[in-house]
Parts: sequence; structure tokens; C-alpha cells
Amino acid sequence: MPQTADTNRRVVLSERPNGLPDAKTLQLEHSEVPTPGADQVLLRTRYLSLDPYMRGRMNDAKSYAEPVKLGEVMTGQVVAEVMQSNCEGYAPGDHVLAGSGWQDYALSDGTDLRNLGQTPQNPSWYLGILGMPAYTAYAGLLEIGAPQPGETVVVAAASGPVGATVGQIAKIKGCRVVGIAGGPEKCAHVVENLGFDACLDHKSETFAADLKAACPQGVDIYFENVGGKVLYAVLPLLNAFARMPVCGVVSWYNLSGLPDGPDFGPAIMGTILRMKVKVQGFIIYDSFPPSLFKDFIRDMTGWLESGEVTYKEQVIDGLEHAPAALNDLLLGNSFGKMVVKVG
Amino acid sequence: MPQTADTNRRVVLSERPNGLPDAKTLQLEHSEVPTPGADQVLLRTRYLSLDPYMRGRMNDAKSYAEPVKLGEVMTGQVVAEVMQSNCEGYAPGDHVLAGSGWQDYALSDGTDLRNLGQTPQNPSWYLGILGMPAYTAYAGLLEIGAPQPGETVVVAAASGPVGATVGQIAKIKGCRVVGIAGGPEKCAHVVENLGFDACLDHKSETFAADLKAACPQGVDIYFENVGGKVLYAVLPLLNAFARMPVCGVVSWYNLSGLPDGPDFGPAIMGTILRMKVKVQGFIIYDSFPPSLFKDFIRDMTGWLESGEVTYKEQVIDGLEHAPAALNDLLLGNSFGKMVVKVG
Repeated sequence: MPQTADTNRRVVLSERPNGLPDAKTLQLEHSEVPTPGADQVLLRTRYLSLDPYMRGRMNDAKSYAEPVKLGEVMTGQVVAEVMQSNCEGYAPGDHVLAGSGWQDYALSDGTDLRNLGQTPQNPSWYLGILGMPAYTAYAGLLEIGAPQPGETVVVAAASGPVGATVGQIAKIKGCRVVGIAGGPEKCAHVVENLGFDACLDHKSETFAADLKAACPQGVDIYFENVGGKVLYAVLPLLNAFARMPVCGVVSWYNLSGLPDGPDFGPAIMGTILRMKVKVQGFIIYDSFPPSLFKDFIRDMTGWLESGEVTYKEQVIDGLEHAPAALNDLLLGNSFGKMVVKVG
Repeated sequence: MPQTADTNRRVVLSERPNGLPDAKTLQLEHSEVPTPGADQVLLRTRYLSLDPYMRGRMNDAKSYAEPVKLGEVMTGQVVAEVMQSNCEGYAPGDHVLAGSGWQDYALSDGTDLRNLGQTPQNPSWYLGILGMPAYTAYAGLLEIGAPQPGETVVVAAASGPVGATVGQIAKIKGCRVVGIAGGPEKCAHVVENLGFDACLDHKSETFAADLKAACPQGVDIYFENVGGKVLYAVLPLLNAFARMPVCGVVSWYNLSGLPDGPDFGPAIMGTILRMKVKVQGFIIYDSFPPSLFKDFIRDMTGWLESGEVTYKEQVIDGLEHAPAALNDLLLGNSFGKMVVKVG
């Protein structure tokens, strides 16, 4: 059933997953379209962003954000259109960035919205290259990574929205950039379209040796977004005073406990010690000052206009396909920034 | 055989250890006392420092410093007396800080020495509370840890020279300080003499629960010098934006490979991500500007004079006992800063 004017489709968290989400995890419900009160706007979702952090919100565990409660609408960022407005500063037809989650309609008092105007070019880009994933790449690479010309930067999930942006910015900053992606098609895209110096297939049996060969000067910055075997292959290559911004460990998000050994703890901590590595986790909206976001928008707008940064989206058509698409994302089967066209 | 005027006893690395050093690892040799050339001084060792990093130098592995070569004198910092001098700035009777290792006599051109004058008070202290271990504590805690009043600081090996100093400085900075040590005697010393708020015995079966109970507000700074089960007990307690200076992982120094699982990699990296932790390895003499050392000497001298910092040494008498003493240190059986009185 597509988006309609008189029903609100809502994808709710009905059961906490053990490992990969399954058919019982997220369920589609129907309710009435809500009516805005005084000082509220009614939003109709156009695009929903799918992002790896969503898996973490399904767990009932201490994290940087509250878990989604059972029976609640699944969390997520959207670009929505204002349908009715009782709220100063918002008019019907305005597009806004909202955190209203996996549903067709939502109410807001306007305080949690960013107004994108009546006819934004590429509205879905505010969920990617002009939004959270690209800002994550920008802030983590520049503020924690602090790349210097000639340094070697390694980034996994290189065809994804964060990795692709990290690598392209690192190239602009004069670095040698080695990407890691799953499969030859993604690797070819990363080198040919994104301009990385090399891209290695982590599914190859010779992956660790390939990575070493691609980094003859060692690794100065490893932008960590996947964890797992990629991290373990990078560790022996880190140079003295290497930096490791950590924005995700997606390969581990479906773990329901610690995996079997050996224990890589001594390898991680020993490398940090010996090579004087700085490893820093960050969550984009509370690790950096708001002024940095303005720098990001200014720089990224310029890079997109000059063609120094290019952007690839994978658009899923229909809210009902969002749960399966999120699993694809978690399994590394997405290609480009995944957004769901909701209406 | 004690130190004499006409023989140079040298402890050389005769075999690389697999795990804990044994009788074949370090061997005592005798040679002639060397004769200083033009622009050289002859040094006679008074005190040799024993430190955990020495275990790492026995391995033939990529690290922050070159490994000791087989047949070479084992590396180490000493306080020595100048016996003969052909070197401007040094006179017989001067005490110097030198890196001449586990032997009675050595030559130097003076460029690698620090002159402590003719009659330094407590010469061995330049190997501890006025030297590398205490400077490691000072720089790591203040520059990477950046303690704020009211924060909770956890430090392991709390009765050792680094941990004891970390905790005492953290108290001066207004923090709640929780130490970890091996056995009730060390724990009592840490609380009663060093003024920590609490000290927990890592040999206790309830250690992880004890640590949690001692940190009701979570942990803001974990000064990492041991790794292993202490690290794994701290991880779930880390607060948002916690800092972890890493100056050692001594519980892992005797590993000859990765230990059995489970793999704590996901716990380490996942915590860094979710709690936005900064983990930074450092090596004291190349991670900080020289001006910081002057600040350290100024502050530490004041704290020792005021009694805000106290210092405990364990003095081993005789170079021939140094190998066994180093093993005690690596096994956690030392109590206070270990120095060998060589002559």
C-alpha cells in the first residue's frame, strides 16, 4: 500500500532482534493521520534515511542515545513536506529535515526541524552528502584525523556515504587514499568515480596482504566505520602517531555477545601503545561545535559545485521495503547512500 | 661479585624470551673497565631503574624503540657517577642520568646525559618520582586525561611508580581516585599513605563488582597501564567523553601470541564509539614538548616539599639480582618503584 492522504503507515519496533533483524523486528501498522494542534505543523514524509546506527537503537543497551521503545515508531531522519502549519516560520510546501522516523505523517512544534525551503534541489541529499553521513566524514576526518598532505588514509565501506566522503575529502587534502569495499563492482566505482588511489575487496582471500601492498608507507589515518577483520588487518600497518576516528563498527552491530577468540584486545591496545595511536569515538551531533556544521556546508557545497566531490544514492521505493533494505545495508549489500522514497 | 674498580659486569640479552624471561634470557658477563677517549667521560653506575617497558625491548618486534640486539647490554636508565672526564661540563664526582644500561661502567660523550650535580639529594629519585615514571604519570594524566574536579579517575598498578603518581596528582586536581592493586597490603598502602579514595584488589573474585561499586558516578579517566582483565572490567563503566591515556599493558607483555577468546575487540571498539571515548597511546619522551618536562619538575618538586606527593621505593641490592627483580616487576610482585643499587 502506497502513501495516501488519509492513513498513516508506521513501522514500529515490535520485538528486539537477536542478531540480524527479522520479520518480527519491525512491523507495519496503520493509524489515522494526526491533526496538528496550535503551534504544530503536520509533516508528510518524502524521504527516509537508512543508516547503520539504527541497528544499535533496536537494542535495550546503554548507548549514546535512548533505545527505541517496543511499540514505538522506528527512529530515523527524514525529509518531509509541511502539509499544514500553525507554526511561525513554516508554510505548507516547505521542505524540512525532521527526526520523525519511519512513518508517513508526523506532528512537530518546529523546534526540531530545519527548514530547507519550498523547492530544495535534490531534497534527499540533506540525508546524505549535505547531511549527517557526510558531516560525520568531514568532522571525523578533519577534526580527529587531521590529515596532512602525503599521508595515507584508509577507509572501509568506501562506497557508502561516509566512506566515499572521507576518501574524497582526504584526496582534496593531498593524501594517498585506500578504500575497502565489498566486491569488484564497488571497488571499481570507488577508484574510477570517486578518485581513490586504490580500493581493495575485503571478500578477497588475500585481503590483508593486498592492504599491506597498497599502503607501502603504512597507514596514518584509519577512519573506522566497520571494525572486524578490516580493523585487524589495518592494525599492523599503523604508523607512529596514527589517528583513528571511530564513527561505527557496523560489522559487529548484529553481535548478540562477544565472538569467539582469539582475543584481539592485546593487539588493539598494544598497537595503540607502541605506535602512539589516538583512537577517538564520536557522535556527530554532540562531539563538535555547531560552527563546524556551517564550515561543512560551505566547503561541501563548493566541492559539489566544482565536481571535486561526487555523490551516489541508492533509492528504495516504498516504506514497506525499508526493513529489508536496512538489512541489506547491515550486510554490506547496499551501494551508495540508501534512502527510502516514502511519498 | 659486587661492583669493583677493575671489572665491568654487564648483563646482556643472550636469548629472546618466549613469555616470561628465564635464566637463559639475561646473562652476566665480565669485561674490562673501558678507558675514556678524548671528549668522553667514564661513568660508574650507582642505581639502575627497572621498568616494565624493558620486556618489550627483548622482543624482535616493531615497536617505538629498537629492540636490544642479542649479545648487547640490556637497556635501562641509570644514575651514575662520573669517574674520569675529558668532557666539558662534567667533573669527577658529578652524578648524571644516563641510558647506559645494565652494567657497572660505561663511556659517554656527554650529549645523552643530564647532570644532577655533585651531591644530589636522593639520587635514585631521578629514576622515579623526578624522572620517567612520574613524568609519564604527569603528562599522560594532565595532557591526555585532562582531569576536571569531581571526575572519577581509575588507575591500575596503583602502588607502582606511575600509578601512585597518577592517583596523587588526580587527588590534587580534585578528582575521586580509585586505585587497583594486587593484594591487601598494597591496597592499604594506596589508601592510607597515598590518599586514594579507594583501592581494589584485582585478585579478588568480586573484583569487577567491587570496581563498579567504587565508581558510582562511572569512570571519566582510566589511566591504562596494565590491560587484561582490569581494562575489561573498566570498559562498561566508562562515561561519555571518557579519556584513556595508554602508557602500558603490562599484563600482556609476556604474551607470545594472541590469547584465547572471547574476542574483546567488539567491546573495546564499541565502547569507544558509543561513549565517545578518546584512547591515546604515548611514549613519554616523544609525545610531549620539552617545555612540559620543566613544568613537571617545578610542580613535582613543590608537591614533594609540601607533602602532597609521597614516594615509595623498593631497592634491590646488587646488579646480579636485577633479572629476578625484573620478573617480579612483570608479575606484579614489586611494591613501589624498583631500583637496583648497583654500586
